[in-house]
Amino acid sequence: MDTEVFRIRTGDAPSAADITGRVAAFVRGKGDGLVSVFVPHATAGVAIIETGAGSDRDLIRHLDELFPRDSRWRHRHGAPGHGADHVLPAFVSPSAVIPVVDGVMALGTWQSVLLVDTNRDNHHRSVRVSFISA
Amino acid sequence: MDTEVFRIRTGDAPSAADITGRVAAFVRGKGDGLVSVFVPHATAGVAIIETGAGSDRDLIRHLDELFPRDSRWRHRHGAPGHGADHVLPAFVSPSAVIPVVDGVMALGTWQSVLLVDTNRDNHHRSVRVSFISA
Amino acid sequence: MDTEVFRIRTGDAPSAADITGRVAAFVRGKGDGLVSVFVPHATAGVAIIETGAGSDRDLIRHLDELFPRDSRWRHRHGAPGHGADHVLPAFVSPSAVIPVVDGVMALGTWQSVLLVDTNRDNHHRSVRVSFISA
Repeated sequence: MDTEVFRIRTGDAPSAADITGRVAAFVRGKGDGLVSVFVPHATAGVAIIETGAGSDRDLIRHLDELFPRDSRWRHRHGAPGHGADHVLPAFVSPSAVIPVVDGVMALGTWQSVLLVDTNRDNHHRSVRVSFISA
Repeated sequence: MDTEVFRIRTGDAPSAADITGRVAAFVRGKGDGLVSVFVPHATAGVAIIETGAGSDRDLIRHLDELFPRDSRWRHRHGAPGHGADHVLPAFVSPSAVIPVVDGVMALGTWQSVLLVDTNRDNHHRSVRVSFISA
Repeated sequence: MDTEVFRIRTGDAPSAADITGRVAAFVRGKGDGLVSVFVPHATAGVAIIETGAGSDRDLIRHLDELFPRDSRWRHRHGAPGHGADHVLPAFVSPSAVIPVVDGVMALGTWQSVLLVDTNRDNHHRSVRVSFISA
């Protein structure tokens, strides 16, 4: 399979990193098919949303609201409230599949592909991209 | 790739429009494979849920509860509270992949494919369907 | 298509059942491609999260928080609060796609594939796995 793993720096604060350019570069010239964007981590997800008008920060802040970093979680490894990070991928899935037409992702004008990582303890993350030809 | 874009009217109120028939018509006769249902918009998602017993309206109402249309959002374009629409696709993904067996989606009895669009400002939406043969 | 349906017992309480082994067995020896894990039920989803440190129980408990089993739902069939189960799959999708490299899912160390089923009324569930070769 045409597949590749790249690393990105997510830092020590919750983040939504734009990986659109990396995925776009991977599919360039590959013709028609589907690209799978898969994050092999248990505390991260892939979101397809707008960036540039504040929605990426809105998302990070709202995740904190929906999954509070308090003592409610049974999972108690890592930083306080880290159990919240482990519930996140059930909602913001680590897997996304995007159609590719003539080597270009068929995204809408305002869509970007983001790696969502609320985990403070890991500063680098891997992303696997895989292309299935039509 | 066997891919097609269709338009549907979503109107000026938050809606969950049943697009099962459109996707079913697209895959008919195509044999075995996967169908990708992808919405190229930054304020819409694809949900696979039941319709007919009120769950589509339950979903729309509950989205309002989980993503309140108030002034908390940094994204401030469009109607008041529109920032909520931009966080939605991180949870209700714009991308869904459904197995197709002998030209028919392998949905359960009570599953329908819905286009979820809480955005009041756009009255029409595009949906891209793509078929990958097994 | 290389596709198969297996049944698992989910019992009469909300559960997150680990189906990683079943999916792993299905893809073994199949080479490179994508595996689709699809649950043909309207009140269940597929989550890719960690198990073993409590996160599966955290998820089930938090679903109860985010989708309360009270009288707010229009969908009124089944047990009290069952309408909540019908909104779940819009967030925890019944469809997941995972890359497969040389017959092995490219999961991270801490990722497991879970069938999330908050529905108390159905004690057995089907899961369809389908493999698309690269």
